[in-house]
Amino acid sequence: MKINVGVIGFGTVGSGTVRILLENKETIKKKTGVELVLKRIADLDIETDRGINIPEGVLTTDATKILNDPEIDVVVELIGGINPAKDFILKAIQAGKHVVTANKALLATEGKEIFESACRKNVCLGFEASVAGGIPVIKVIKEGLTANNILSIYGIINGTSNYILTKMTREGVDFSTALKEAQERGYAEADPTFDIEGIDSAHKLTLMASLAFGIPLSYDSLYVEGISGITSMDIEFASALGYKIKLLAITKLINGEVELRVHPTMIPEDYLISKVDGVLNAVYVVGDAVGETLYYGRGAGDMPTGSAVVADIIDIARRIRDGVSGDRDLRFIGSETHLKVKPIGEIESMYYFRFTALDRPGVLSKISGILGEHQISIASVIQKGRKVGEAVPLVLLTHTARERNVQEAIAKIDRLDVVSDKTVVIRVEGEQE
Amino acid sequence: MKINVGVIGFGTVGSGTVRILLENKETIKKKTGVELVLKRIADLDIETDRGINIPEGVLTTDATKILNDPEIDVVVELIGGINPAKDFILKAIQAGKHVVTANKALLATEGKEIFESACRKNVCLGFEASVAGGIPVIKVIKEGLTANNILSIYGIINGTSNYILTKMTREGVDFSTALKEAQERGYAEADPTFDIEGIDSAHKLTLMASLAFGIPLSYDSLYVEGISGITSMDIEFASALGYKIKLLAITKLINGEVELRVHPTMIPEDYLISKVDGVLNAVYVVGDAVGETLYYGRGAGDMPTGSAVVADIIDIARRIRDGVSGDRDLRFIGSETHLKVKPIGEIESMYYFRFTALDRPGVLSKISGILGEHQISIASVIQKGRKVGEAVPLVLLTHTARERNVQEAIAKIDRLDVVSDKTVVIRVEGEQE
Repeated sequence: MKINVGVIGFGTVGSGTVRILLENKETIKKKTGVELVLKRIADLDIETDRGINIPEGVLTTDATKILNDPEIDVVVELIGGINPAKDFILKAIQAGKHVVTANKALLATEGKEIFESACRKNVCLGFEASVAGGIPVIKVIKEGLTANNILSIYGIINGTSNYILTKMTREGVDFSTALKEAQERGYAEADPTFDIEGIDSAHKLTLMASLAFGIPLSYDSLYVEGISGITSMDIEFASALGYKIKLLAITKLINGEVELRVHPTMIPEDYLISKVDGVLNAVYVVGDAVGETLYYGRGAGDMPTGSAVVADIIDIARRIRDGVSGDRDLRFIGSETHLKVKPIGEIESMYYFRFTALDRPGVLSKISGILGEHQISIASVIQKGRKVGEAVPLVLLTHTARERNVQEAIAKIDRLDVVSDKTVVIRVEGEQE
Repeated sequence: MKINVGVIGFGTVGSGTVRILLENKETIKKKTGVELVLKRIADLDIETDRGINIPEGVLTTDATKILNDPEIDVVVELIGGINPAKDFILKAIQAGKHVVTANKALLATEGKEIFESACRKNVCLGFEASVAGGIPVIKVIKEGLTANNILSIYGIINGTSNYILTKMTREGVDFSTALKEAQERGYAEADPTFDIEGIDSAHKLTLMASLAFGIPLSYDSLYVEGISGITSMDIEFASALGYKIKLLAITKLINGEVELRVHPTMIPEDYLISKVDGVLNAVYVVGDAVGETLYYGRGAGDMPTGSAVVADIIDIARRIRDGVSGDRDLRFIGSETHLKVKPIGEIESMYYFRFTALDRPGVLSKISGILGEHQISIASVIQKGRKVGEAVPLVLLTHTARERNVQEAIAKIDRLDVVSDKTVVIRVEGEQE
């Protein structure tokens, strides 16, 4: 049996996808009985040599040659961005074609219309490649752990920011130096905003939460904080306290409310996820039956992401082979309309504070007094380098506290005349001490 | 839509499975549209209270009430062992029922007949729970990474032996003390042979290799070595050299030959898998496109293993819902009949040797001379505690060498009169230095 595939977008992921489709065709056929035929590749640039031998007549600059070709079963959208990607996907669905995409930004922000449209037309919509590159975590959530009530998902799902934090931690360099090197190595884009400000992680987390909990896609209610404010000093203090700082994407379902947040997080350094360094990704999925499970691998790159794209194509090919149309389970996404995102002020966490306070008698007592008034209790204190009368860092770790109380207390503390700079606040995961 | 399930075997995994089927029924229905109905549970003991509220009329001591019930769609075999499990499974398949099993020993040793029978009768055979408990690694190999040529799989897939090695490493206790504690905690059976001698790992590895490479089930050609010979002294030397000792199951496809082996292995301590401690499992799956991926979680226990059993039931339920019968992809298992298992003598590895040699001039030169004659080159040497004229441990790490050469060299060295005890040989994974 032959399944015809059309790929729109011949950039990095497109190249990986095409390479796998061509080079691993026999393996895939042996395992599934299906032959994947790469019928067309559309890209505005069909001149650049990608180092792949493309059969005659496959390349085109005209995406409609894929969208309007009645022989094409699966359309793969790999151009990224909102438009014209959205338009292509909707047209493909409209034409009754199955769709595979790696476009997390599009699905997280405009996914409602796309998923609904796929369900209405009874076609499949594969998006494994949109989260954590080659790691099959979408399949794990959607199928491998279906027996579970998913309790939480958290992970490192942006390789760029993890590379930067790893470099800062290992070499003691500051953020801008680490970012520059990431850019030189091709791990960060010229405009790195999406990666370093947590937006890319937020897109991916939005998708995982909707798949796991059925909550409507909630990118707009998600709390996002990036890593551009992380300093070497905080990484050093974290290390002295036995923690690493990672950009963590976190979602939890607690009492009918969903936490949905991306922010720098201190994690005990003996946790497995603290050892996930460089551009690698790792995602914990916690279920009520299975407990904690972890999935680890390359979260980006042509071949790892291509692996996920082609896995989706194969899953669709299997369904076509078996005479199944559509994917009933997609309907779960967004179906739990009663679920709401918990406002960030309502979450509970442990916290790291770094105050910049004058080294003067009574300062710690003033600060801890304000914390106490806001029901924030202190787990440990570090004060280094005494310089009487000058501003020095004062570091506190708290027990579990409520975010709103923390924000109020810190606002008050930052107005004290003994406090000379904005207080650094980093959320802390791990066992309550 | 309702799918009727019959569970044979109401022990640990059976209880977890039943609990999930009853407690997570609504969640499963919401996600898939299918209602899983636990129609019957068969066990010889239906008196013991498992702390689960079983609906009236479900319990029976007679497995044929499941096998012969035309309304039952899926038969779950959780009694373990070869017989009557095999008989039950074959009868269920014969009756056109889909089967889910956690029985790695049976599938690894008698799986050929069972898989062939399932393919012939066009029914599904789910065995996710037979490898690595709740970690969905079978699904990952079978579906998540189908786009890849799998290059290798290696992992810690026996919680009991990992618990014992972890305890020996952390507390410096000897093997028998650690085993005793594992037994007291219920992590090891009264007869621990299957776990500590690597047999359980070998069963699981057999299944993963056949699924990944299509090689016929090759349990009989697999090389197995357990952990009962590991001493505290070797764990200490490993640690001094920057390694941990883990019982690793390893399969690799190289030049049309499959390596298939389970043995204690020294792994650099900064590798993620070296941090997998206690009863936890972790499996690396390496694909040509995706690179290294890791899957981590609880490899045993009622609820984690139940999670995998029920995931298989749900996958079958989805197929019934979608009008699909059978699982075409099962045919890949055993289809690559040209693949052979590489004899252990032909593999290449780095090695750790601990010689017990008299502390006398010229001993190192004699030993290294014999190694050199067998094309084994030395990467590093540790000699501790000089006691001239007495037997002391002499530890060597080698560069990559051929196993057959190693066996020959060690046999020769062990016959030297300056060598007073059998040499300890442990294979070493990691980067060549």
